[in-house]
Amino acid sequence: MQRFLKVPVNPIEIKGSTTVDELVRQFSGISFQARNLGIAVEIWERMLDDDALIFLGLAGAMVPAGMRRVVSFLVKNRFVDCLVSTGANLFHDCHETIGYSHWKGTHQVDDVVLKQESVDRIYDTFASETEFQKTDVFISDFAKGIPQGEPLTTREFLGLLGKELSSVAKDDGILTSAYKAGIPVYCPGLADSSIGIAIAAGQSRQENSVVFDIISDVVETARLATFASSGVVYVGGGLPKNFIQQTEVTATLMGLEAGGHKYAIQVITDPPHWGGLSGCTFEEAQSWGKISPQASKVTVYSDATIAFPIISTALAARRSDNLAKRKLPKFKMGRTLEVSS
Amino acid sequence: MQRFLKVPVNPIEIKGSTTVDELVRQFSGISFQARNLGIAVEIWERMLDDDALIFLGLAGAMVPAGMRRVVSFLVKNRFVDCLVSTGANLFHDCHETIGYSHWKGTHQVDDVVLKQESVDRIYDTFASETEFQKTDVFISDFAKGIPQGEPLTTREFLGLLGKELSSVAKDDGILTSAYKAGIPVYCPGLADSSIGIAIAAGQSRQENSVVFDIISDVVETARLATFASSGVVYVGGGLPKNFIQQTEVTATLMGLEAGGHKYAIQVITDPPHWGGLSGCTFEEAQSWGKISPQASKVTVYSDATIAFPIISTALAARRSDNLAKRKLPKFKMGRTLEVSS
Amino acid sequence: MQRFLKVPVNPIEIKGSTTVDELVRQFSGISFQARNLGIAVEIWERMLDDDALIFLGLAGAMVPAGMRRVVSFLVKNRFVDCLVSTGANLFHDCHETIGYSHWKGTHQVDDVVLKQESVDRIYDTFASETEFQKTDVFISDFAKGIPQGEPLTTREFLGLLGKELSSVAKDDGILTSAYKAGIPVYCPGLADSSIGIAIAAGQSRQENSVVFDIISDVVETARLATFASSGVVYVGGGLPKNFIQQTEVTATLMGLEAGGHKYAIQVITDPPHWGGLSGCTFEEAQSWGKISPQASKVTVYSDATIAFPIISTALAARRSDNLAKRKLPKFKMGRTLEVSS
Amino acid sequence: MQRFLKVPVNPIEIKGSTTVDELVRQFSGISFQARNLGIAVEIWERMLDDDALIFLGLAGAMVPAGMRRVVSFLVKNRFVDCLVSTGANLFHDCHETIGYSHWKGTHQVDDVVLKQESVDRIYDTFASETEFQKTDVFISDFAKGIPQGEPLTTREFLGLLGKELSSVAKDDGILTSAYKAGIPVYCPGLADSSIGIAIAAGQSRQENSVVFDIISDVVETARLATFASSGVVYVGGGLPKNFIQQTEVTATLMGLEAGGHKYAIQVITDPPHWGGLSGCTFEEAQSWGKISPQASKVTVYSDATIAFPIISTALAARRSDNLAKRKLPKFKMGRTLEVSS
Repeated sequence: MQRFLKVPVNPIEIKGSTTVDELVRQFSGISFQARNLGIAVEIWERMLDDDALIFLGLAGAMVPAGMRRVVSFLVKNRFVDCLVSTGANLFHDCHETIGYSHWKGTHQVDDVVLKQESVDRIYDTFASETEFQKTDVFISDFAKGIPQGEPLTTREFLGLLGKELSSVAKDDGILTSAYKAGIPVYCPGLADSSIGIAIAAGQSRQENSVVFDIISDVVETARLATFASSGVVYVGGGLPKNFIQQTEVTATLMGLEAGGHKYAIQVITDPPHWGGLSGCTFEEAQSWGKISPQASKVTVYSDATIAFPIISTALAARRSDNLAKRKLPKFKMGRTLEVSS
Repeated sequence: MQRFLKVPVNPIEIKGSTTVDELVRQFSGISFQARNLGIAVEIWERMLDDDALIFLGLAGAMVPAGMRRVVSFLVKNRFVDCLVSTGANLFHDCHETIGYSHWKGTHQVDDVVLKQESVDRIYDTFASETEFQKTDVFISDFAKGIPQGEPLTTREFLGLLGKELSSVAKDDGILTSAYKAGIPVYCPGLADSSIGIAIAAGQSRQENSVVFDIISDVVETARLATFASSGVVYVGGGLPKNFIQQTEVTATLMGLEAGGHKYAIQVITDPPHWGGLSGCTFEEAQSWGKISPQASKVTVYSDATIAFPIISTALAARRSDNLAKRKLPKFKMGRTLEVSS
Repeated sequence: MQRFLKVPVNPIEIKGSTTVDELVRQFSGISFQARNLGIAVEIWERMLDDDALIFLGLAGAMVPAGMRRVVSFLVKNRFVDCLVSTGANLFHDCHETIGYSHWKGTHQVDDVVLKQESVDRIYDTFASETEFQKTDVFISDFAKGIPQGEPLTTREFLGLLGKELSSVAKDDGILTSAYKAGIPVYCPGLADSSIGIAIAAGQSRQENSVVFDIISDVVETARLATFASSGVVYVGGGLPKNFIQQTEVTATLMGLEAGGHKYAIQVITDPPHWGGLSGCTFEEAQSWGKISPQASKVTVYSDATIAFPIISTALAARRSDNLAKRKLPKFKMGRTLEVSS
Repeated sequence: MQRFLKVPVNPIEIKGSTTVDELVRQFSGISFQARNLGIAVEIWERMLDDDALIFLGLAGAMVPAGMRRVVSFLVKNRFVDCLVSTGANLFHDCHETIGYSHWKGTHQVDDVVLKQESVDRIYDTFASETEFQKTDVFISDFAKGIPQGEPLTTREFLGLLGKELSSVAKDDGILTSAYKAGIPVYCPGLADSSIGIAIAAGQSRQENSVVFDIISDVVETARLATFASSGVVYVGGGLPKNFIQQTEVTATLMGLEAGGHKYAIQVITDPPHWGGLSGCTFEEAQSWGKISPQASKVTVYSDATIAFPIISTALAARRSDNLAKRKLPKFKMGRTLEVSS
């Protein structure tokens, strides 16, 4: 029995002055998802110590929900090195960067009335359809001015967009921070978003002929996965999670050495028993070789709007000198991407 | 459109020094469950301001998970006035109060081996079956020394148990805090727990003949619901949630005036679409008259191990003088319970 | 590799004439929760073959949702031998048995209007508060005519109620079927339901002085668990699941031989990672000795309104002669309960 | 009260001979998700009656789970007119079509051992990594023989792949059925799948230079959404759901008339309260104009492995003559797609 009963659960003590980081440290000593939240920060620290290349997969309506500056903070301070996002989050990032807002709303509302008033709803959050269409125009105008006809990786496209946004930005967002930090951003499902819609509408008006090279996205990210050591952080599941997972499989198929990501954190809400990729465990991913057999890994079942800022605040507290101390992966970006340590 | 777009979502800013309370204040300005967490604290403040009688319903393995002192804190500082709990949480509270622990474990383990080693598992938390049996003996011994044969409400029983525990306590737990604070604790499903098991095993050995008066539990709590103003906080669903909800229905049937609880907070994980009581919304409860048509109400979908300490810490920060400032409901407890403001 | 790849997934073939039983047989050959549904029927067959004593735990608003005759079918045809239910399901069973209905409604409705119109909502189902109060009166009238003052187990009480209902029944429900079949029904959380409310309201008017002996419920069901072989079926979690689980622990504490239930099926919606009893796995239960180390066990994650009728229909197809063929546990019910094979 | 209480819940009657279709008809008369399952079939019938263009969005590991022939059945019998799928499902479809299998496994297994044995796990289902690599080779070989360098829509690519597969098929799968039926299949996240991986690995070996025209996917599907009437069926959420939803928004931005899809069915497991697209309600979609204000719509919360075959079987029973009776949208496919009624 003794081998199983070594560390007692240490009940949480409530004090009004507790900082987020202090609470997270207490979380590590209790149970269930609070413990996993505590472990997530510890694993993140470990992958920073190990100078691993850190992928962040971002799904869910994180920007409308208020997470834009959290991601921006992580990028600026290089708690992450490569971002894979849904198109929606990047569109919403553009929207806020050029000066528009998302709005506090409610899910208990007549959506037909919202439609009549040109208000789009994202659960309890509203947006102005009129303003969204202005961001659509911003993007389709931008698309006119970039290389036409010849395939661009989504990483190239988003780098150019980050640069353009930097020139008009009201404040720093995800794409501008990534542009300034010189880190790659991928969006392999770009067509499936308002960015894709805006470019498509432009093409239907024959204003642009932008072509995306989504296969080179796959090749490039597979090469990134062969970096000395890599770690993954998934906020939500969906395409970003799968795309970062598959890098290891692709690398193997390309004949590169790939032993699986060594650090793995996910903040998700899907349980594994539906069988989908969004809810799959890191153990399952080990069978595929996506995650290393020796990986440090944790799953936190929580709404990301709660867990993600908490984790990021704890990182900020523990690693205020991250930029100075960490040996950063260096990216050289052109038609192709090169990375060195 | 303008009537829907009044308050922008205010993206979270990450700083290492942020306190829990500061983060919760930021949560109120964003979306999804983080916002609901922020609202929960605001509603709790409002019910304290209104001198409402506050019920806390406690379900789920909260004590093994490290929540015992959170509840104890809320009781001591009178953020709650009446507790309704599953039997398991009270058994586990006894267990820790008399000096035993729950232990950090893992859900990835061979349970048949645990059985062989007399280790009981609660998801990622372990307990010693040998120690549990000592707590069983504590309870069955206690049961010998209390009134036999004549029905006791679970509130009377738990009051006596709280008193007994106070004399042996290593530290303050739920039942001892409630005993010292003079607030009632109910456990209408007492038979369905290790407390019930311990007493039943005692009865099978003819050591006790304790009888519970669960109908008077219903009558008493219905009377509590007619207090000038009442509020409810549910950590998990199950029996405690339903039992506190039904007080209003019972009161009506008893011919008392009952307009529904005026403040309502729940931290749950069940969605409403399975149709069960654990996941039901407070709107549904309004149709029954359980919750007032004018109630302030919020549902936070989160593991309670994360949300409950956060809410409690924010309360501690905002109301350090709660005991001094709040006009407390006063309980006079004997065979029956009386409450006055 | 070969040892892992033995039975291919056999893709479902769609035909309009397929019976439920045929589809369930196909489900056994595919994946995820459909497979578990197929396995559930197979395990149920196995426990019938083994002449196990079969417990059914019933939680969730199953009767308002249309499951009353499913349970009645299982009881009449002795696919189950002992029922543990929430009080609500038994109240709703009374309600339908004496001639009232639940009604098809919607969850998209103004609950404050429903309240004004005396309509109670259970997700997408409505009930008349006026009719509910008539069933309350039926129950409080019934409570006047049964033994007063002396403790009754909930099993005794529900047996008497089943008898009374049989004399007025419009059709056969849960309690009347159980009464006629001579099988025990327990409701250890009776106080937490409209049955409890109705009796409590009666007591507040000094019309009855019924006392429940919930500790003897525990003792009796622990003895049932020592039957040669036992199996469990949980529809939902909550108190019924825990109460049936704990029988094995109680039996052990009472010095009886208890090796854990040998067959275990649950149809639930809670995942295990919240740590609560409702979502706990049967593996976890093995650590406690609640479920046998050798048990046949399956968890089906599904709304019970879908899975429960499907499982029951497949049983009906495969075991139309169950009553004739199966060696039924025989119950002798008086102040105490005796069971023999 | 009477206006709310019109149709009583009609409790399910269990008979062993019940067909799937008969059970689904009974489901319409009860509550919760069973009722929604019943409604789903009724709405599907209505959109067939209305000669709507029917989109099917397919996410989750549906093919490994045994759903390949269900989709094939729906395509062959034209219960659907246009398919949008994750890449994984199409890869797995290729895998089975060229003669390989997925295998019944278990989620309770040591994944590191699976890795050593080249077994990939998808929850409770296994696959041979060796065989997967043969399908990779099939796809990369196929990619050599199609137009290089010039952008292809994923619809063009998948049409060619369906044709190729038809020449080697052991039996009819999704892509071959779609090819033979002449209906379009889109996969805007193709890069994020083993199809993308196989092509990328080929490109890294300079064997192919296939380029995808994902923007034209967007343009084409937006035009489809302007068909006289359209309906959507989502099995799972993710990219396919969003991509089909966004067609209406794109059409509007392109200056086409788009009033939202008129029929909408989704079988999902995500609740709406996490704020993500996968779990969003059709009401939310109405605010965006994605779904018509007058739409017939239903959400079924269920594992698709259970609900999807049931719905399809009921359709088969009710519409055995669908191909003969329904006025099918006609597709003319070349570099672009044209549709006529």
